[in-house]
Amino acid sequence: MPSYRYAARTRRMENPIIRQLLRLGQREGVISLAGGIPAAETFPIPEIAEASERALARWKSRALQYSPTEGLAPLREYIARRKGVRPEQVLVTSGSQQGLDMLGRVFLDEGDVVLVESPTYMGALQAWNVYDGRYLEVPTDADGLLPGALPDEAPKLAYVLPNFQNPTGSMLPAGRRDEVAAWARRVDTLLVEDDPYGHLFFGEEPPASLQKRCPDRVVYLGTFSKIVAPGLRLGYAIGPDEIINMMAQAKQAADLHSQAYGQAILAELAEMGVIERQEERTRNLYRRRAEIMLEHLGKYLPDGVSWSPPRGGMFVWLTLPEHVNTLELFEEAVEKGVAYVPGPVFSASGGLANSLRLTFVSVPEEQMEEGVRRLARVLEGAIGG
Amino acid sequence: MPSYRYAARTRRMENPIIRQLLRLGQREGVISLAGGIPAAETFPIPEIAEASERALARWKSRALQYSPTEGLAPLREYIARRKGVRPEQVLVTSGSQQGLDMLGRVFLDEGDVVLVESPTYMGALQAWNVYDGRYLEVPTDADGLLPGALPDEAPKLAYVLPNFQNPTGSMLPAGRRDEVAAWARRVDTLLVEDDPYGHLFFGEEPPASLQKRCPDRVVYLGTFSKIVAPGLRLGYAIGPDEIINMMAQAKQAADLHSQAYGQAILAELAEMGVIERQEERTRNLYRRRAEIMLEHLGKYLPDGVSWSPPRGGMFVWLTLPEHVNTLELFEEAVEKGVAYVPGPVFSASGGLANSLRLTFVSVPEEQMEEGVRRLARVLEGAIGG
Repeated sequence: MPSYRYAARTRRMENPIIRQLLRLGQREGVISLAGGIPAAETFPIPEIAEASERALARWKSRALQYSPTEGLAPLREYIARRKGVRPEQVLVTSGSQQGLDMLGRVFLDEGDVVLVESPTYMGALQAWNVYDGRYLEVPTDADGLLPGALPDEAPKLAYVLPNFQNPTGSMLPAGRRDEVAAWARRVDTLLVEDDPYGHLFFGEEPPASLQKRCPDRVVYLGTFSKIVAPGLRLGYAIGPDEIINMMAQAKQAADLHSQAYGQAILAELAEMGVIERQEERTRNLYRRRAEIMLEHLGKYLPDGVSWSPPRGGMFVWLTLPEHVNTLELFEEAVEKGVAYVPGPVFSASGGLANSLRLTFVSVPEEQMEEGVRRLARVLEGAIGG
Repeated sequence: MPSYRYAARTRRMENPIIRQLLRLGQREGVISLAGGIPAAETFPIPEIAEASERALARWKSRALQYSPTEGLAPLREYIARRKGVRPEQVLVTSGSQQGLDMLGRVFLDEGDVVLVESPTYMGALQAWNVYDGRYLEVPTDADGLLPGALPDEAPKLAYVLPNFQNPTGSMLPAGRRDEVAAWARRVDTLLVEDDPYGHLFFGEEPPASLQKRCPDRVVYLGTFSKIVAPGLRLGYAIGPDEIINMMAQAKQAADLHSQAYGQAILAELAEMGVIERQEERTRNLYRRRAEIMLEHLGKYLPDGVSWSPPRGGMFVWLTLPEHVNTLELFEEAVEKGVAYVPGPVFSASGGLANSLRLTFVSVPEEQMEEGVRRLARVLEGAIGG
């Protein structure tokens, strides 16, 4: 076999740890609290079947032909209406992962600094590793990013997850949002506001987005993956017209446009009122599951483990005593029948070894208690030992 | 408004000429022979409606959940069976445009040489401009790429369209395929074989692919856009396991996976026998339209214009006397009510000004004669003047 000559960036894409973990965690008999996927029972299957029929009947070949890179008009209009922006500010993307990729593509030169929270969403790191940026980590607490820790020098991009952060579940309060927006203006930088979970609040609705607070300094990423279904692979970016236009050019070179059929289906679902119903239904289910999970955590986890109740979303983040290494502990956990995601996966610098992420949405409710019990035994051993 | 700080590559993405052209050509009353889109009347709408229903009934939430980056198993298996490879050699992509992007991403460092045909498909140039490669053009004749013109030094990638080339409609004969494969082995390079039109032959079926002739030196790109529907945005790459694995890692960072619902629909269409039926139906329609187009070209075009009858696909390529500039002529053509694609769009070096591409598939049959007549008048003026 020839030895193929890959680009330098290809070496930065490999992430053998995560791949290995994912394989391990799928072993039979393992209760996985590791997933990052929505609860499949929320998917509106009959409604999607009906919307598919309606989309073909109404749109006919236009639902199946090449279509504008920016997205189908009625879907852009729906998104614009919901988010209080103009349709020209909306780019439909192949999931919000593609929004992250397009932002890297349009903005990042080699060595450019990207500010990220610690911890942060690993998919963003994967997307931007391709463009060889450097990460600058800013600490967070139970209320998200600490504005006082923001630097005086402008990064090229500053990546913030204000609503029910992945992995911590925290929500950035209104005051901090104002501070972050003021900082972006002061140092002259662009905020990337990633908001896959905004509709999944357990208490009050979140405060107004960063995008609302400083529209000319924010690219906001949204998705239908957590509310309708990830298999449609449709999300969106909202930003200043000029940036959306640049991202559309970048997207044209990447995949021409996102699937038109799914866009037409979403436009029909929107008209049918299904999307709003899904938001309520999903949020209620996840709220209940979070409560169950928190009850079990309180009941079973040993002293020395702490967490903040998630304010929404899909995850809870555990912090363990300094000496515990959740990466090293993972194999033992799987042997004892439970999987989680080790903290370092969410760290741009590979830190956070004494933390881990659990999901409460995709594990069957009747397995949750046993999963937490198994985890508790593993952690007891590690903390005691 | 702030002035945004884009990456250097962003400047290479802009292609104002093409955007301007596309807008102009859409003017009312203009007969467009410029399109690069399939005939919408070939889309199997009732079959897609049925397959959508079947996909949801059989796959349920799995058609809507996050799914493997490599593609849904039954679709990979169908592609592998049709192409005579193993499923592990198949990566499902968001259209073959994404295959081009992933190849650039995995292989191209700044300044790397990509060999392309002259003329070549503009979408490949758009995809690879992002990665800042340099292009080396190899001339073609009525039988495609000239193997004698291939260089002794290995490019990083060599991009070949053997079947019904876009834009020329040429087909690379078996002998030349052997020569290209032997060259790839000798200089140690990787061939990118782009084959969107292989099933759309007007005469004999094309000879075996380059992929069949040297499987460890070829990444083959296929698509369902020209046979089923582009709006599903589904294509595939076939290659050595190692490269497919690398491309899958790259794709994971780009969009996680291609839409699962559409993949399940295609798997159902395959089982229903629709894909093979579509191949035959589309090829018969396009053959007839090519014949009509060629008749009109022969009847109306002035002396000094030459073309080779396309062997399949969607396009015919006209060559005009040296002094005619189809880019400069475009505005006049649109004023006279006809649009085409100027040759330089298909040239990595901006050459080929005395040529143009016409499509015969997406223009209504009853407008074809008038379109060619208008074009003839424009060309007469240019050649005479």
